[in-house]
Amino acid sequence: MANTETWLAKAQIGRDALEQSIPRHLIAGISNLPGDDQRNVLHFPEERGVLTPEELDMTSQTVDGLLQRYRTGRWTAEAVTLAFLKRATIGQQLLNFAVEFLADPALEAARSLDEKYRQTGALVGPLHGVPISVKEHIGMKGRICNAGFVCNTDSIPEEDAHIVQLLKKAGAVLHVRTNQPQSIMHLDCNNNITGMTLNPHDRRLSPGGSSGGEGASVAFRCSVLGVGTDIGGSIRGPAAFCSVYGFKPTALRNPGHGLAGIFGGQESVHGCVGPLGQCLGDLIRFQKAVLDQEPWETEPSLMPLGWRDVTLSPPSLTVGIMLDDGLVQPHPPITRALLAAEQKLQAAGIKSVRWQPYQHAEGWDIVKQLYFADGAIRLRSALESSGEPMLPLTEHVLSFASPTDLTVLDNWKLNSRRDKYRMEYQALMKSQGVDVILCPTYVGVGALQGQPKYWAYTAVWNILDYPAVVFPSGLCADKTTDAFNSDYQPRSAEDEREWKAYDPELFDSLPISVQLVGRHCRDEEVLQAAKIVEEAIRKGAKDI
Amino acid sequence: MANTETWLAKAQIGRDALEQSIPRHLIAGISNLPGDDQRNVLHFPEERGVLTPEELDMTSQTVDGLLQRYRTGRWTAEAVTLAFLKRATIGQQLLNFAVEFLADPALEAARSLDEKYRQTGALVGPLHGVPISVKEHIGMKGRICNAGFVCNTDSIPEEDAHIVQLLKKAGAVLHVRTNQPQSIMHLDCNNNITGMTLNPHDRRLSPGGSSGGEGASVAFRCSVLGVGTDIGGSIRGPAAFCSVYGFKPTALRNPGHGLAGIFGGQESVHGCVGPLGQCLGDLIRFQKAVLDQEPWETEPSLMPLGWRDVTLSPPSLTVGIMLDDGLVQPHPPITRALLAAEQKLQAAGIKSVRWQPYQHAEGWDIVKQLYFADGAIRLRSALESSGEPMLPLTEHVLSFASPTDLTVLDNWKLNSRRDKYRMEYQALMKSQGVDVILCPTYVGVGALQGQPKYWAYTAVWNILDYPAVVFPSGLCADKTTDAFNSDYQPRSAEDEREWKAYDPELFDSLPISVQLVGRHCRDEEVLQAAKIVEEAIRKGAKDI
Repeated sequence: MANTETWLAKAQIGRDALEQSIPRHLIAGISNLPGDDQRNVLHFPEERGVLTPEELDMTSQTVDGLLQRYRTGRWTAEAVTLAFLKRATIGQQLLNFAVEFLADPALEAARSLDEKYRQTGALVGPLHGVPISVKEHIGMKGRICNAGFVCNTDSIPEEDAHIVQLLKKAGAVLHVRTNQPQSIMHLDCNNNITGMTLNPHDRRLSPGGSSGGEGASVAFRCSVLGVGTDIGGSIRGPAAFCSVYGFKPTALRNPGHGLAGIFGGQESVHGCVGPLGQCLGDLIRFQKAVLDQEPWETEPSLMPLGWRDVTLSPPSLTVGIMLDDGLVQPHPPITRALLAAEQKLQAAGIKSVRWQPYQHAEGWDIVKQLYFADGAIRLRSALESSGEPMLPLTEHVLSFASPTDLTVLDNWKLNSRRDKYRMEYQALMKSQGVDVILCPTYVGVGALQGQPKYWAYTAVWNILDYPAVVFPSGLCADKTTDAFNSDYQPRSAEDEREWKAYDPELFDSLPISVQLVGRHCRDEEVLQAAKIVEEAIRKGAKDI
Repeated sequence: MANTETWLAKAQIGRDALEQSIPRHLIAGISNLPGDDQRNVLHFPEERGVLTPEELDMTSQTVDGLLQRYRTGRWTAEAVTLAFLKRATIGQQLLNFAVEFLADPALEAARSLDEKYRQTGALVGPLHGVPISVKEHIGMKGRICNAGFVCNTDSIPEEDAHIVQLLKKAGAVLHVRTNQPQSIMHLDCNNNITGMTLNPHDRRLSPGGSSGGEGASVAFRCSVLGVGTDIGGSIRGPAAFCSVYGFKPTALRNPGHGLAGIFGGQESVHGCVGPLGQCLGDLIRFQKAVLDQEPWETEPSLMPLGWRDVTLSPPSLTVGIMLDDGLVQPHPPITRALLAAEQKLQAAGIKSVRWQPYQHAEGWDIVKQLYFADGAIRLRSALESSGEPMLPLTEHVLSFASPTDLTVLDNWKLNSRRDKYRMEYQALMKSQGVDVILCPTYVGVGALQGQPKYWAYTAVWNILDYPAVVFPSGLCADKTTDAFNSDYQPRSAEDEREWKAYDPELFDSLPISVQLVGRHCRDEEVLQAAKIVEEAIRKGAKDI
């Protein structure tokens, strides 16, 4: 099997790059790694004392917390970067979330920041000394950019992606590159190069995807912020599954130049770069740090929309609550969390109305066809050129493609359907006075490895090009409260498949996330609304 | 020939609609219409006394002039509308620029404006009582929208196009719909329904296109402002050929919903709506009136960029002067006007540098392929469905299409080439500190009917998505000064064809226009820069 040898040899290049980059020398041998049967490993660093108390403190900070301590001179960027590299090294052994560590350049960058700070007394930028992990297909100069395909382990960009350049200018320390699935089109995180990333809440479960490495990294606090990408849920899925914060901006705001993947030139449904983080404030800080640099000056296809500092007053806000997209019913914990949120909003005096999903079947149908308007030629030829085996979830997404090849004219017609859908959705929100929609991120609180297949709760907002943020509801799944309804009458085979995937025992005690969505280009308002909604629903959340 | 009968019958529907709409009853029989041999008919209304002095005064106003007189109560919108309807009726007999008159609804709208003004003492909007002509393929409720094809004479929109709605809300009076060529893809203005529009400066010449009806209308002062569309030069060509002002905004600023044509859903090169008018100030007033209404609230694919009131100081401006795109050399009058402009800018203390065209062959190649990425299927089937004959310029644009059918993947690759070209062009402008580029609009000052074929001087800015404004240079072609160089060595067959099209005798004394172009989304700056440049180059222009 010469072919198998070929792809294995190519895959090995990627594995070697990872293996050689892991900075094991920075952290003394970790004894007593949990066995594979230990599901939840989130608190391993604290429990096993593998990091010093100060390192634990460093790695538990938000952006603001770090900046405060840099300003007082309490910590150096070098010390903080070292702490994150150590924690990430542990995280890697438990979760396999990384594709490449950048220990030396990160420490060098940190020392340079410290030096500048010593010289000037001023922080270099709004992300000074903030350790940030970056999804692998966001290119870095001189480093392999495999984009989830074995065939690409010899693909090495000549320059940093635009977003990478901006983050560095803002003072960020990029210390680790993270894993993504084959094709970058799974809501999961497994590939034939560096393999499968695990969910720190339960290692039997998927971390979500495609920015699954980022979900694991941010949840395990291997980084303060993570940079993901999202064309159908790839930031929001991992944020929800790993119980962190994730933001998909409106497309053509954050820069996208220098990203590798199968969708170059595809613009019927724009993918976009966005942050995962520890709190809503950090997502805002990320967006502001990027957009304050006016990326449209370099990348003219972007909209010249700087970040606006907006203030929303709770009484002016109307939240639409969408329990169900009408296609696939969410699992009981999700529904309970949304009903609880509705009560909490009411209690906090925030207006909410029930939002009836508007033709989500149409939105889902359009977006699925548009992903693979090329007939998935790029995807297939990327697999064929190395001979690597197709993973089952790649086969699944290929079922999204139209059974017959689309012509350019078919693509134009889908674009027109999309524009009509956008106009109608917006008109409906305006006519009902709904500012933001609170809804599920996914049918359930999580999924077993290899299982997440239904993306419509996120992808519909991509086709509408609405900004959307995911955050923890403060509630957890409860096998007693959230009973499986075995009498449920499925609406469709898809609905049945997802309903059957609900296992109260498996998902018991996992945190439940929610998604908040707003209109095109109202990114600032959506994040401010999320702050208001989060404050209201987290108040005594455990009482409900 | 049943087929011929079919298309002729269908075309007749469009002709009848025009014929029945011409408000001949408003104006007493015009005696002594100039014979077909009278080339320049621009001043017929003044010379023949077919309008009263007050009507001539009314129809010579800019937007500002009209609004001032409405405010003082000197004129009513009804009287002004009547004057423009009369002038347009004369214009129609001389130039065949219209597709449909809207006399009754226009007069009704004017009376309603007058009534509201009487009641409130305030003008209804920034375009109160301004007679505006509208290109035919911009849909109007309940009226035929043929979009240049015989097959569409039974196509009747159920609502006004978005831009029409906004103009009405701004107080505009829409009194006449204007002609466009078959397929709306000629830089000329002839079709099989209402036929050929003539250029008021010389009726042997093309008015330009595709918004040729607008060029003739605005030049003859059948309207104060005209609404055209531009995907390759269709506003700027007619503005230049007819010596009026025309502005192609950055795409996705002005609303485009409700336009008919063969490009619905095509978004690799966006077409856009824009104004033709009597002065730069009126173009700005149009843009402000539209964007102040926040069209993105209804049409969410637009960028939420309101109109900015900017001020530019001449010393801060650097004008790049591009004499030649490197592909097809402009005719002598064009080159002379640009060299004169260079001197005048210098004399006015405005910084200018020579701008070397950056890969215009690449831009022109990309845009030509992208127009017909569908293999021109829509165009061909629109012709076939009625059986109307294909006009020679339609055949010409079909030569733009790739010889082999493009796949969706080919389209994606062209999009990527386009984005690369955009990034490089912008980087070059920034690195050279060039704010705007002054360049030809077309190879010559005009073209014989049926002849304009080379669009690259305008279309390259469409693929870059740069805003561009066309205005008269103040100079005219001169057969003595602008001699034909018979020794010219052509660069290509295309260059040779265009060079041979130069006829000093034919074009003698025709006004020369120039084009000013600026970076993506800098529409406001481009129009302000045009004011500065115009003021500088018009100073004693006749002396050069």
